Amino acid sequence: MRDKIYLALVHYPVYNKRKETVATSVTNFDIHDISRSCRTYDIKEYHLITPVDAQIELTKRIIGYWQDGESGGFNKDREEAFENTYITESVEKLIEIIEKKEGKKPLIITTSAKTFSNSISYMDLSEKIFNDNNIYLLLFGTGWGLTQEIMDMSDYILHPIRPDGKYNHLSVRSAVSIILDRLLGDN
Amino acid sequence: MRDKIYLALVHYPVYNKRKETVATSVTNFDIHDISRSCRTYDIKEYHLITPVDAQIELTKRIIGYWQDGESGGFNKDREEAFENTYITESVEKLIEIIEKKEGKKPLIITTSAKTFSNSISYMDLSEKIFNDNNIYLLLFGTGWGLTQEIMDMSDYILHPIRPDGKYNHLSVRSAVSIILDRLLGDN
Repeated sequence: MRDKIYLALVHYPVYNKRKETVATSVTNFDIHDISRSCRTYDIKEYHLITPVDAQIELTKRIIGYWQDGESGGFNKDREEAFENTYITESVEKLIEIIEKKEGKKPLIITTSAKTFSNSISYMDLSEKIFNDNNIYLLLFGTGWGLTQEIMDMSDYILHPIRPDGKYNHLSVRSAVSIILDRLLGDN
Repeated sequence: MRDKIYLALVHYPVYNKRKETVATSVTNFDIHDISRSCRTYDIKEYHLITPVDAQIELTKRIIGYWQDGESGGFNKDREEAFENTYITESVEKLIEIIEKKEGKKPLIITTSAKTFSNSISYMDLSEKIFNDNNIYLLLFGTGWGLTQEIMDMSDYILHPIRPDGKYNHLSVRSAVSIILDRLLGDN
């Protein structure tokens, strides 16, 4: 049951270093690297979440360049990577879109450095994904992480990637890749 | 025996789309994302390989910005990420540096979409790394991949990350993250 997993990279609402709620900028590599990872692991749709008009315009232009054939066919693999990449103004709006399409709300998955009553291991979540009929939405934060209001929407919270590591500051692009591989990979 | 693994991102010699040998450009994210992944998985040294003077200068300036405290302490985690990041002019030179430091040559590890007599699984290589006394150098190519001359130096060649996937075009930054997690992670 792989064809029911959605992934979103949240640029708003997230914390900055001082724990204020801000909108971060979409980077070119957030679009490219994560689109390619999502495509590799058969994610149904990848959504960049931002309500900022200028960011929406810029992101649409980058995706459009590859999707509309402006790239002149130089890199077919890249065109294909963007087939399921979208830009959406809020997490709430994305949940609506998914519910409309799938006929039910997705279960929300996040990650945290802390342990909660709904924390789950990679193996347990992987087993659920392969064996149940739920729709899943994996949410990743930029900046200094997802706000409490978004974390409170989580149905399951994944354990940290390196719980005993001395240094634990992977880029969100690396974290997405590793988590997709742990949940959906061949290893 | 984790403290004996080196990683290099090769910008020369690699192939372009027409299988000509070229030097690719170092990207900011090649420096940031991979430094952070290497640090998270306790890689001893991360080397960006390029012989191009302008690229060496640019890369040194970016690394220096964080290492020399010019960033004003805004992001301590990022300063720490770059402590073991270097720029080196060739793979041969890097092998010399490692041999001088460790007293023996490293075993060279690469990845390929094809299977060879020295192909190895992630689990088998992981077991070797944790149990033997060899030094390892993981080489990753940019552009359209490492040239044949570099591939011919491989002691072991890792299997593709998604051998049965329909789409197999991860960014090198994602591939590095996933491979480090498979070889050295807690999963």
